[in-house]
Amino acid sequence: MKTHHAPQPPTPRPPGDDAPVAPAAPGADDPPPLAAQGQEAEVLLEATRALVDPQLRAAVESLPGSIRRVAMYHFGWQEADGTPSSGPAGKAIRPGLVLAAARALDGDPVRAVRAAVAVELAHNFTLLHDDVIDEDRTRRHRPTAWAVFGIPDAVIAGDAMLALAQRLLAEDPDPASARASARLSTCVIELCAGQQADCAFEDRGPEEVTLDECLTMATAKTGALLGCACALGALYAGAEERAVRAMDGFGREAGLAFQLIDDLIGIWGDPVRTGKPVGADLVAHKKSLPVVAALTSGTPAAAELAALYRGSMNTPGEVSRAADAVERAGGRDWAQICAADRMARAVSHLSRAVPDLGRAGDLLTLAEFVTRRTH
Amino acid sequence: MKTHHAPQPPTPRPPGDDAPVAPAAPGADDPPPLAAQGQEAEVLLEATRALVDPQLRAAVESLPGSIRRVAMYHFGWQEADGTPSSGPAGKAIRPGLVLAAARALDGDPVRAVRAAVAVELAHNFTLLHDDVIDEDRTRRHRPTAWAVFGIPDAVIAGDAMLALAQRLLAEDPDPASARASARLSTCVIELCAGQQADCAFEDRGPEEVTLDECLTMATAKTGALLGCACALGALYAGAEERAVRAMDGFGREAGLAFQLIDDLIGIWGDPVRTGKPVGADLVAHKKSLPVVAALTSGTPAAAELAALYRGSMNTPGEVSRAADAVERAGGRDWAQICAADRMARAVSHLSRAVPDLGRAGDLLTLAEFVTRRTH
Repeated sequence: MKTHHAPQPPTPRPPGDDAPVAPAAPGADDPPPLAAQGQEAEVLLEATRALVDPQLRAAVESLPGSIRRVAMYHFGWQEADGTPSSGPAGKAIRPGLVLAAARALDGDPVRAVRAAVAVELAHNFTLLHDDVIDEDRTRRHRPTAWAVFGIPDAVIAGDAMLALAQRLLAEDPDPASARASARLSTCVIELCAGQQADCAFEDRGPEEVTLDECLTMATAKTGALLGCACALGALYAGAEERAVRAMDGFGREAGLAFQLIDDLIGIWGDPVRTGKPVGADLVAHKKSLPVVAALTSGTPAAAELAALYRGSMNTPGEVSRAADAVERAGGRDWAQICAADRMARAVSHLSRAVPDLGRAGDLLTLAEFVTRRTH
Repeated sequence: MKTHHAPQPPTPRPPGDDAPVAPAAPGADDPPPLAAQGQEAEVLLEATRALVDPQLRAAVESLPGSIRRVAMYHFGWQEADGTPSSGPAGKAIRPGLVLAAARALDGDPVRAVRAAVAVELAHNFTLLHDDVIDEDRTRRHRPTAWAVFGIPDAVIAGDAMLALAQRLLAEDPDPASARASARLSTCVIELCAGQQADCAFEDRGPEEVTLDECLTMATAKTGALLGCACALGALYAGAEERAVRAMDGFGREAGLAFQLIDDLIGIWGDPVRTGKPVGADLVAHKKSLPVVAALTSGTPAAAELAALYRGSMNTPGEVSRAADAVERAGGRDWAQICAADRMARAVSHLSRAVPDLGRAGDLLTLAEFVTRRTH
């Protein structure tokens, strides 16, 4: 069913009495300049990797030989022929969230390292399978695992990585491990639903995907694991269920904000540092959030955009017209306002888990880092 | 590396003092005739399905809509269009082993039902992914899930099924659940290694796979989950680690015996009721256990078989000559003796877990059922 509605600038959700209207750098009257925040996040992530990488690597090295080879390549620790490599193994955003959430709730981050490793393994399981499913040939500036080792080996390595994540939690004597394991499993099912919906959208016409469906998909595909990371940190800090759920809400909303910004960058390029080429998502006919908001706006620009999406859209002129149509249909404004709204909701959730937000500085730094993309 | 050795009829392993030399129907001087044993197993499996199916179905129905659709089709509960179906959902051998192992150790089978469901979900996760990887288009007389829904949906449904298996155990308040979850995860990694090895063998020449590699592969791919099923039953009966390991050994060895028999059937057909066409595995150039035993025998027949395996082998004459070569090279005898030896080892393990084998009647019935294929 099609919905035709003008994208309404969402009313910023009235924050609770205890919630600030926007994320603020704790303990400072003015937020530090972006570059400084970026550096602060880099320091945090560097510290995260120092704590997490040894256990992550030990876990991956425990896999049977032939699977280990694919996994070591995927993480950038080895070349395809098995020679050591120091390629980028990912930024460790999710492990960073696990440890920061534990710290914000007076937990010992060291106790939560195993959970952080499990979350990173689950994340990389999705990358391995998504690359197969989406037929993506490049990740982190290298050929994807399936492009190097074939589809069977990449699917099997993903399967083993998911089982390894679960084994780490199941073997953890920490009293939090069973609830963490249940949360991670539930999250993986949601990730699967998100990936399935994403695939299904590709087979549908430009006006056949509703904005609600698209938001649900993005929440499942991106928000769920960021939420789970924060929730596991809370569990390993011994937090009660209410705080665990609030932490999940924080990560989930921050994840959706991140997705909205990422979708804007997919059309207009990175305002800070150009990572993706301008218009990349349009050339790929991606039904990203700003695009679907525009397509379902009921405006004349929506019809124009739909016509472009039904065509090949491979000339710079067409791509530029499509970006312009998204903007005129209100998709760009909607996504920007929605991203800000989601960040406000994220902070509102966070303030329920950590009433003194001054103690959640690391979490806010990481959330800013992923949404402002100052990296 | 190639190994060239005559397949030695393995000396049946000297059973321990407490182990019988061959599985015997407990409480009877003479084993009942095959047909009666088969019926007994059918009754057992019917009772298993009555206990397990409601929870299995409820679990699958808890999956998100689009994934549920694929899963319901895979289990034979729905047609591709979502209409109800009463297709065969599998024999429930693995859940049967979980419950029978619990019962043999004085456990309450009802307590172990959730573990039985988890094992069946993990088994079906492997079926979904293996069918994609092996490009198999038919299972249980119906098109496979990927052939109906496409590769992405089948991979995603398999992923979700594995996560669901883990969620059931993680949410189980039973004190056995953490150890069960760890065992299942470890088993899934072994299953992955087995499937990976199986794929890798296909790319190697007929004389480049050793019998040891082939036995390790079959143990990982078939024995590991049968062993895990028995071990989980033991855990849910509150058994100590020694008995849990012995139960794992029983299922593992019985699984290998099953694989050997299945491989013989793949060449010479089913002696009881013809399920597979004669020579099916030869036409497919499958490097099954009797074939690898023959290929690595160092006999003139081995060279003849290798030459046939390097060719197309698609005429009845060639297939018949290959089967004959396997037999002359000693592959058929080796597999038969090895299967009997593995069953003896299985019973030896079982007698360590259940010294009074009269109490393990159901387990022996199921083991006979899978290895004698009287169904």
